[in-house]
Amino acid sequence: MQCTAGLVERMMTGDRHALSRLFSLIERDTKALSAVMKDVYPHVGKAYCVGVTGPPGAGKSTIVDGLIQLFRSDGVGVGVLAVDPSSPITGGAVLGDRIRMQRHSLDHGVFIRSLATRGIRGGLSRSARAAVRVLDAFGCDVVLVETAGVGQTELEIMKVADTVVVVFVPEAGDAIQALKAGLREIADVFVVNKGDREGADRAVAAIDEEVHDTRAGSWWRPPVLLTQAINGDGIPDLHRAIADHRAQSEKSSRLEDRRRERRRLEFTEALRESIESRIARIGLGSGRIGSILSRVERGEIDPYLAVASAMDDQEFISCLMRDFGDKP
Amino acid sequence: MQCTAGLVERMMTGDRHALSRLFSLIERDTKALSAVMKDVYPHVGKAYCVGVTGPPGAGKSTIVDGLIQLFRSDGVGVGVLAVDPSSPITGGAVLGDRIRMQRHSLDHGVFIRSLATRGIRGGLSRSARAAVRVLDAFGCDVVLVETAGVGQTELEIMKVADTVVVVFVPEAGDAIQALKAGLREIADVFVVNKGDREGADRAVAAIDEEVHDTRAGSWWRPPVLLTQAINGDGIPDLHRAIADHRAQSEKSSRLEDRRRERRRLEFTEALRESIESRIARIGLGSGRIGSILSRVERGEIDPYLAVASAMDDQEFISCLMRDFGDKP
Repeated sequence: MQCTAGLVERMMTGDRHALSRLFSLIERDTKALSAVMKDVYPHVGKAYCVGVTGPPGAGKSTIVDGLIQLFRSDGVGVGVLAVDPSSPITGGAVLGDRIRMQRHSLDHGVFIRSLATRGIRGGLSRSARAAVRVLDAFGCDVVLVETAGVGQTELEIMKVADTVVVVFVPEAGDAIQALKAGLREIADVFVVNKGDREGADRAVAAIDEEVHDTRAGSWWRPPVLLTQAINGDGIPDLHRAIADHRAQSEKSSRLEDRRRERRRLEFTEALRESIESRIARIGLGSGRIGSILSRVERGEIDPYLAVASAMDDQEFISCLMRDFGDKP
Repeated sequence: MQCTAGLVERMMTGDRHALSRLFSLIERDTKALSAVMKDVYPHVGKAYCVGVTGPPGAGKSTIVDGLIQLFRSDGVGVGVLAVDPSSPITGGAVLGDRIRMQRHSLDHGVFIRSLATRGIRGGLSRSARAAVRVLDAFGCDVVLVETAGVGQTELEIMKVADTVVVVFVPEAGDAIQALKAGLREIADVFVVNKGDREGADRAVAAIDEEVHDTRAGSWWRPPVLLTQAINGDGIPDLHRAIADHRAQSEKSSRLEDRRRERRRLEFTEALRESIESRIARIGLGSGRIGSILSRVERGEIDPYLAVASAMDDQEFISCLMRDFGDKP
C-alpha cells in the first residue's frame, strides 16, 4: 500500500497507466480505496460532476458521447465513468454501448473508464465517489457519470453528481413510472431522447406537468428537453441546460450544499472503515477486550448483552481504539 | 422494537405465528436482528446444527427430507432452514424442491422455513446464524440448514453448522472441482447421491482418495457415503455418520471450538452493528465531533485525514461513544 502516494504523483503528471492502476485499487477493497483517497484528496476540488441516468436503452451513452464532444470543443478535460450496477463484474451492456465513444480514445483530453465494485463495502456509490475524486485529481474539469437502469442503487450513485440528467424515451408511461420511482426528486434536467418516435411531445408535456406540480416555487425548475442524440439534435441545448444549472447552483449555494453532504458521507464512510478494520482484529488484542471476548467465547456471557454493556463502558471503548494501531 | 421480548416469550410456548414474526424481523434489517437476538440469546444452547450443501440438483432437499423422518422417528424436534444465496428474494428453486417436504407440515415437531436476507449487513451467514438461534430457542433439538450452490457464500454459511454434509452427484469431475473450490476443508461427511448413476463408485473412490491425502492423521476422517435419497437408500447411514461426528466432536472438544468461533463472530458482528448505528447518527451530535464534521463539510480538512487523526484521539472516540445513546 506504500506505493499509492507514488502512483498519485505519477497520475498527476498525466500518466494514464498510473491512473488505471489507481482505479484498480479503488475497485479492489475498502482498505485500498481508503489508502488511495488519503493521497488523492489533497488534490481534488476542481472537477464538476454531471450524472446521466435513466432506463436501459434510453440512449444515455449516445448522449454522453455528444456531451464529450461539446465539452472538448470548449477545451475542457473530460472524464467519463460508466457504472452498471446490474452487471458489476463484466460491465455488461455499458461496455458495448461505449464502443461508439472509442473515437475519443486518441484524444488525450478524454479518459473513459467503467467501474467494477466487487468487495467495496458501501457499494457502488462509495466507489463512484472515489473514482470521481481520482479523475478530479487527474485534472478532469468535468466528470460524466453514466449509470444504467432505474432503481435505488442509481439514486444513490447520483449523489456523486453536481448536476443530474435523467433520460427517458417517448413512451410516456415508462417516464411517469420512473418519476414515481424517485427520479423526480433527483433530476436537475430531464431529457426525452429518440424525439422522432411517436409520443415524444406527449412525454415532454407529461413530465413538464409533473415537474410543474412538484417544483413550483423552487430555486430551480428542471427543464424538459427533447433530443435525438443519434443525430446530435438537442445536445447543445442539454449542454447549455447543464451550464445553467451549474451557474444557478453556484449562485444559490446549492452546489456547496451538495458538496458538503458528499464530504460528510466520505467522512462517515472512512470512519466506519477504520473502526471496522479494528474490530476485525479484536482478539489479537489483550487486556479488557480480550477478557470480555474470552467470556463470550466460553458462553459465560451473551454476546449481545456484552456488546450493549461494552458500548456504555468508556474503558472498553478506549481499549478498542488504543489496542490496535493501523498496522495489521 | 419493544415487542420482541413478548414475541420471544410467545414463541417459546410453541406459538408458530410468533416464530414466523421473529423470522421476518431477523430478515428485515441488522437493527431488528440485533434486537431479536438480545431477547433470544438467553434461551439458546441446546440445538445441534447440521448443514447440507452441494451443487444445485444434487438432491439436497430429498436428503434433508429423509433426515427429517429419521430424526422424527427418534422423537427429536427438527427445524429446517432453506437458504438460497442465488435467489435471496424468491427463494428460487429451493421453494420448489421443498414441496416434497410438505408432508411434514402437519407434524408439530417440524418447522420448515426459507430465509431471505435483503438488507442484512454481514449477509447470509449472519442471518442464518440468527435463524438457527431462533429455532434453538423455539425448542428444536436439531436444525438442518440446506444451502444451494457451491461458492464462497455457502462456505460462509456452513460456519453455522456443527456438522457439515457435502452432497455430490456421481459425475466425478464435478466432485473434484467442488473439492478444489474449498468444500474439502469444511466437509465432515461426504455424500455421493443418485448412486444408481454410472460412475457413482468411481466418484466415491476419487473423493475418498482426496480425503485420505488431506486428512491423514486428523481427529476425524470424513466418511464418503453412497446414497439414493429418492428411495431412502443410504440415509440411515448418513444419519448414523452425523451422530458419529457429533459424538467425536464432543469428545475431542472440536464442537466447543466451533461454537466459540461462532460466539466470537456474533460478538464482533453485534459490536460492529452498534458502532455503525452510532456513526449513522453523527452530526446529530454536537461538541467535538460536530466541530470536526463541520470543518470536513466546509472542506477545511480532508475527510480521510480527519478520520486518521480522529482515530488516534481518545477524546474524539469518547465523544463518539458518549454523544449517542441507543435511542435514535
